[in-house]
Amino acid sequence: MDAANDTRQRIITAAQELIYTRSYNEVGVQEICDHANVKKGSFYHFFPSKRDLALAVLDQSQAFMHETIIKKSFLDDIPPLARIERFFTTIYEFHKQVKENTGRIFGCPFGNFGCEMSTQDEDIRSKVDNILSTSEKPFVKALTEAVERGDLPAIDTAATARAIFAYVEGIMLYAKTCNDPELIRELGKRALQLAVPVNMQ
Amino acid sequence: MDAANDTRQRIITAAQELIYTRSYNEVGVQEICDHANVKKGSFYHFFPSKRDLALAVLDQSQAFMHETIIKKSFLDDIPPLARIERFFTTIYEFHKQVKENTGRIFGCPFGNFGCEMSTQDEDIRSKVDNILSTSEKPFVKALTEAVERGDLPAIDTAATARAIFAYVEGIMLYAKTCNDPELIRELGKRALQLAVPVNMQ
Repeated sequence: MDAANDTRQRIITAAQELIYTRSYNEVGVQEICDHANVKKGSFYHFFPSKRDLALAVLDQSQAFMHETIIKKSFLDDIPPLARIERFFTTIYEFHKQVKENTGRIFGCPFGNFGCEMSTQDEDIRSKVDNILSTSEKPFVKALTEAVERGDLPAIDTAATARAIFAYVEGIMLYAKTCNDPELIRELGKRALQLAVPVNMQ
Repeated sequence: MDAANDTRQRIITAAQELIYTRSYNEVGVQEICDHANVKKGSFYHFFPSKRDLALAVLDQSQAFMHETIIKKSFLDDIPPLARIERFFTTIYEFHKQVKENTGRIFGCPFGNFGCEMSTQDEDIRSKVDNILSTSEKPFVKALTEAVERGDLPAIDTAATARAIFAYVEGIMLYAKTCNDPELIRELGKRALQLAVPVNMQ
């Protein structure tokens, strides 16, 4: 990695950490620069605005979620519905560990941005909207496979995946607000009940 | 209402509107004072800190939700499960109207505060936590009545109400992020599927 890429990456990583543990509007550019050990002029060389940084942070958080949670959960070494259950176990264990280390549940980085910024910045809203749709895809795939195997009756897999991921966002918001990772485990058990019958969406 | 109460009320109402349509950290005390047509010294007479104002805003939003949504939805003129369906119809119609008037879905005022502030202010987190628990109560009551009438099998009504309200928060987050009130109608139809069997929580 060359020096410019390294500086850009340090800014993104500093912002990701500060914003995730607090909130977007609460963290200023100066604080991000201090945390990344970068001069403010250098910041604006890489990011014309704080919004551009936010979009890069969202990309990095999405890549992180894919590597640490999605890929592991949806491996096809177990039946498709068990993979969805493993998704909930994985996010439960992740946030339980974070709580043990920090005393806090920080929620879903995408839900946090969506909640805080959707009415304030159309580019950020649209990006989070897109990340939510993309996050539904491994659920659609697992549900489709479960229907094909006869593990589920015929259902609207796209509508079901959307209902499940909306529930995921609600669970993460509850876990953050109640500061209790056990809610992820308890509420997650009900996710597969949200099946949407075909033609009844 | 005397002059002091009127001033206090104007500050709360201005803050409620500004924070709900944007976010807590994005709205400063000076802007709230300007919007309420109140001097900054007067603000601190009523609210020692912005956090104290946030807690009063949450009280007012809770009272508003009770009057406009909960009371109307959970009237006992229809069977208990139909009241839960009416809750979703009511929030759908409310946010559809807001979207028509403003072009935006602003989400759940409690979920918004919980998402943005839970890791930053323990008093606000605890207040929102309490409001979420209180919001589950009319659902517990309707579910209990439905079990008693034989409209539902024996279920853990408290755990079911919690799962349903977590789903409500996820639906509102999705509707805000996708800026689409139709998600409230579509996803809301699945809420009663989240029944939690007795002793299996």
